[in-house]
Amino acid sequence: MSKLTFGTGIWAFGQFVDRYAADGYGEPKNSRNMIEAAAKVPDLIHLDINVPFATDGLKAIEMRKMLDDHGLKCRATTPHIYMREYAKGSFTNPDSKLRAKTLDRVREAVEAAAILGAGYVKFWPGQDGFDMPGQVNYMQIWDYNIEGMRKIATEFPDVQFAIEYKAKEPRVRMLLATAPKTLLAIQEIGVPNIGIVMDFGHSLLADETPAEMVQLIHRHGKLVSAELNDNWRGWDDDLPVASVHLFETLEYLLALRTIGWSDPILLDQFPFREDPVAAVSRSIETIKRLDEVCDRINMAELKVAQDAQDALAAQQIFWDAILGK
Amino acid sequence: MSKLTFGTGIWAFGQFVDRYAADGYGEPKNSRNMIEAAAKVPDLIHLDINVPFATDGLKAIEMRKMLDDHGLKCRATTPHIYMREYAKGSFTNPDSKLRAKTLDRVREAVEAAAILGAGYVKFWPGQDGFDMPGQVNYMQIWDYNIEGMRKIATEFPDVQFAIEYKAKEPRVRMLLATAPKTLLAIQEIGVPNIGIVMDFGHSLLADETPAEMVQLIHRHGKLVSAELNDNWRGWDDDLPVASVHLFETLEYLLALRTIGWSDPILLDQFPFREDPVAAVSRSIETIKRLDEVCDRINMAELKVAQDAQDALAAQQIFWDAILGK
Amino acid sequence: MSKLTFGTGIWAFGQFVDRYAADGYGEPKNSRNMIEAAAKVPDLIHLDINVPFATDGLKAIEMRKMLDDHGLKCRATTPHIYMREYAKGSFTNPDSKLRAKTLDRVREAVEAAAILGAGYVKFWPGQDGFDMPGQVNYMQIWDYNIEGMRKIATEFPDVQFAIEYKAKEPRVRMLLATAPKTLLAIQEIGVPNIGIVMDFGHSLLADETPAEMVQLIHRHGKLVSAELNDNWRGWDDDLPVASVHLFETLEYLLALRTIGWSDPILLDQFPFREDPVAAVSRSIETIKRLDEVCDRINMAELKVAQDAQDALAAQQIFWDAILGK
Amino acid sequence: MSKLTFGTGIWAFGQFVDRYAADGYGEPKNSRNMIEAAAKVPDLIHLDINVPFATDGLKAIEMRKMLDDHGLKCRATTPHIYMREYAKGSFTNPDSKLRAKTLDRVREAVEAAAILGAGYVKFWPGQDGFDMPGQVNYMQIWDYNIEGMRKIATEFPDVQFAIEYKAKEPRVRMLLATAPKTLLAIQEIGVPNIGIVMDFGHSLLADETPAEMVQLIHRHGKLVSAELNDNWRGWDDDLPVASVHLFETLEYLLALRTIGWSDPILLDQFPFREDPVAAVSRSIETIKRLDEVCDRINMAELKVAQDAQDALAAQQIFWDAILGK
Repeated sequence: MSKLTFGTGIWAFGQFVDRYAADGYGEPKNSRNMIEAAAKVPDLIHLDINVPFATDGLKAIEMRKMLDDHGLKCRATTPHIYMREYAKGSFTNPDSKLRAKTLDRVREAVEAAAILGAGYVKFWPGQDGFDMPGQVNYMQIWDYNIEGMRKIATEFPDVQFAIEYKAKEPRVRMLLATAPKTLLAIQEIGVPNIGIVMDFGHSLLADETPAEMVQLIHRHGKLVSAELNDNWRGWDDDLPVASVHLFETLEYLLALRTIGWSDPILLDQFPFREDPVAAVSRSIETIKRLDEVCDRINMAELKVAQDAQDALAAQQIFWDAILGK
Repeated sequence: MSKLTFGTGIWAFGQFVDRYAADGYGEPKNSRNMIEAAAKVPDLIHLDINVPFATDGLKAIEMRKMLDDHGLKCRATTPHIYMREYAKGSFTNPDSKLRAKTLDRVREAVEAAAILGAGYVKFWPGQDGFDMPGQVNYMQIWDYNIEGMRKIATEFPDVQFAIEYKAKEPRVRMLLATAPKTLLAIQEIGVPNIGIVMDFGHSLLADETPAEMVQLIHRHGKLVSAELNDNWRGWDDDLPVASVHLFETLEYLLALRTIGWSDPILLDQFPFREDPVAAVSRSIETIKRLDEVCDRINMAELKVAQDAQDALAAQQIFWDAILGK
Repeated sequence: MSKLTFGTGIWAFGQFVDRYAADGYGEPKNSRNMIEAAAKVPDLIHLDINVPFATDGLKAIEMRKMLDDHGLKCRATTPHIYMREYAKGSFTNPDSKLRAKTLDRVREAVEAAAILGAGYVKFWPGQDGFDMPGQVNYMQIWDYNIEGMRKIATEFPDVQFAIEYKAKEPRVRMLLATAPKTLLAIQEIGVPNIGIVMDFGHSLLADETPAEMVQLIHRHGKLVSAELNDNWRGWDDDLPVASVHLFETLEYLLALRTIGWSDPILLDQFPFREDPVAAVSRSIETIKRLDEVCDRINMAELKVAQDAQDALAAQQIFWDAILGK
Repeated sequence: MSKLTFGTGIWAFGQFVDRYAADGYGEPKNSRNMIEAAAKVPDLIHLDINVPFATDGLKAIEMRKMLDDHGLKCRATTPHIYMREYAKGSFTNPDSKLRAKTLDRVREAVEAAAILGAGYVKFWPGQDGFDMPGQVNYMQIWDYNIEGMRKIATEFPDVQFAIEYKAKEPRVRMLLATAPKTLLAIQEIGVPNIGIVMDFGHSLLADETPAEMVQLIHRHGKLVSAELNDNWRGWDDDLPVASVHLFETLEYLLALRTIGWSDPILLDQFPFREDPVAAVSRSIETIKRLDEVCDRINMAELKVAQDAQDALAAQQIFWDAILGK
């Protein structure tokens, strides 16, 4: 029986907008709505929760009670550092006041994390980067990023922080775009308590091989969270798990076994046009099915094939396991 | 002196949201704010205006007065057929009631166009398409699209309609993705009053060569509007003109000369992080500068180079004209 | 039992070179070697054969005998119009002598096709296009293409010709890049005997949805051949079938059922680093396995899901069929 | 007056093949032909030379004499570790004998470099990577790469080595794909004498921002060589400098000024369809023109714009400098 445990970003149960459907996909949702929805998903326990919460003025202790009441846990808090004020950046904003305010926002998320019992606080600097050639001094924004993250991580040496890298969106081109570039940034920051949230879809978007990258991050001891979803490799579509990339997802799950991953697998979905409970449930079901496929893979045979870099043999092993032959 | 005339989508002066900065880039704007902003842009005359208008309940006759008062003209109206209700499609929505409602929305835009003196009504079916493999019967949604557009265009034989094609966003994968595919759809619709709005950025996004496509559309007699902006070829970034692709923009302007384009050039920008008046003004200034570069190109020499398909010679002609040698 | 029949481009069994391994992947191969290899692949009957043949001076009648002796059939002939001489184009070469010579090459392939009993003659204008902005007059090369193809197709009204479109390679940017653009070209050519070879991998490369495009081409009555292989969507990698895109291949096979395809499915592979017989055999095996998956799909249920454009339901049907649930 | 100095890969003057034009673009060339061609390019001094040389059996001392006679210098030697034998990899080949042979090839290039007076020996592991999902154990090939490069660099502590990273081609997906990933590999190798050859086109292909990456590599003290050319961002087209990306090239030249680059700028072109002397000459001319544009940029004003991350202002400064306003 699968020992996998599951979580998701709480936003999967919120209302979505985009620049066209500015009136929102679905109805507005408050924190309670979102938690009640999450509680309906079989096997879903862990949540990555944005701070401030969706419900204005809701206190962390109230949020904690709601989670407890529904048998849910907070896995991470993610400060909102990518909304209106931060349009030109959070850690790398040209305005020193906004760079400082970014740290304040992180402090709020740290505080909430303590109350909620979260395992880490996530940096998602979605506005840090640039839009057009010539706009920024690349090394200046690199420095701003290093300095800001170092300052806040040093301030809370007992808190685990984790950067979720992404190549673009909302910023036209984002600074911490790939796993290796983020590892270099973390080295330069030079503190022990910043790691990486490795999102499968962001890895596809960056034209990485997710199964390779999750192992490379682990090799550097920086894997804090592993997230799954899917996209078409051209945009962060945040689709259900393995709705497009079956082999890559299978390889990713095998890689998680290889590194002995025992923490939850988190989902990061935006079900614009689907029922969120169904969309998240489906992803968990798919992962469990692929976990059974993993069980059927003869790892000794796969090793022989991979030691010889024999693509046909390796693929046949995958296919046999998938089709249950 | 340049004879070019200019317009823009009125949305350039509105408030933007995206799925992260759901609280909006900049302040909320009503129709008056947007028109006042447009009036500040030197040489800007024409507007593509969304229907319903940004100001709730504003009547077309009131909008017309505002335009007149500011020396502006309505070039096109664009019905909102891509907001919440239309999340699963407008012309191709699985629900026949929503397909019918799409036509109602177009009827409103036709009515507004008449009052505003617009030259065409734009179809922008941004939600028509699909998200994941297997989701749709491709020929069924193709049929829905043909039928819906034929019905409404037949109903208003004196109105010029125009489809703005795009490969993706907001729908994960859009039906009318490229110029040639849209031309095939128009052929199958079989009415004379549907043409194409050719957006330079959408053409880049579709991995087309815009200067080629604008001529191919013209060759079929279907070019209704020519729009400029720029992006990085991976997403519809809606950046200022030639902020990334200088040569392709230059070629496009030459192509417009070749086909004798005398209608306005429209802009389609989303200046998320810039002052909208400055961003649009800058694009117009850039086009005028490139128009001067076009004047400096020795067309006889370019013909010799292109007849020989001599890339080095053609590029030297471009460079000399750009640098003013 | 599957009624599918199979063929492949004969080049799968040849020696490959690229611009780096200019000394070639594997040993040099002559026509006999290649046919003997083809004969070893279970269920492989049909070949698309380049003209002139790999063996210098080999006559068509000798080739025919070799095919007959090995139980193989010639499905198509493909004239070499993309080698050294044609570096700047075949049908669209700036030199009228080379445009004329292109037609001579096609005439040779027509002659060979008659002797070999081929079903069609393939145009693969891999050098027609351009490299850099400004290099060509787009409408001029479009005209050249129309004229050349019309001339040769008119000369042989009883011969079926078919264009294999592709977005790039070897030319940096190719003229007949997508299915819809190629359909427009065929319309303008205006003869009944030119259709399309629809290569799954080229469709992925063009960012098309192959299952949609094969049906759109069929809708226009122009589908002459359907080819399978796979790639990573960024280049024409010519990998074994479904080695990357399982769902898209499954959808494609379903689309072939929908249109009632009964001609052979051809493969187009370049097994640079694999044994060619094994690589082609594996693709045929994979198609047969996916054909069984198609058998397990409840088409009535799929129709319900697709009529509702219900992505989760459609995907579940696919998954259940794949996993044999 | 510009102080820039120039070099090129000697292959620009050779014969090219690809998998279609297997008979080669242009005539076969020997080492003498290539050097004579190089000598015709104004301002071209430095060559990156493949070892073994194009002429079979040519000795390094003879090559040195030819270079001296033509006023040329050897900037680098590049061992052929990507031809037929190495189809499944060089440093990461599954066969230990081929991994060992790779080092032998490097030793030959080191020996030639000493005689030719080269500044560095280039690793271009174009076959190291994989083709299909599942084929390799990613950490195993990473280890092979680390071990092989460490062994050879340790053997020649006084020789400067440099890795040229690339995302793909000839291998379908290459191991050392990006600058940050290559920096991580170099760190793990742990020797002081391996750096990076930063090719502008490979950086575009990897969806990097070249001007940023050249500074990040410099920040790590690992920039050994800076190469220029251009492509369409989807493939390594190896086109003349700034034939597509003018702004990015301009930014790159500014970045080289910022880091005080005083070594030669190398070109990496494959002029399949152009006269090589003309194509390389044109690139050098373009760089000189852009160097003049750099002279016209008001760096103080640019700093103000970039400190504010003001895209419109920065772009205006670029445009004014380009147009000579």
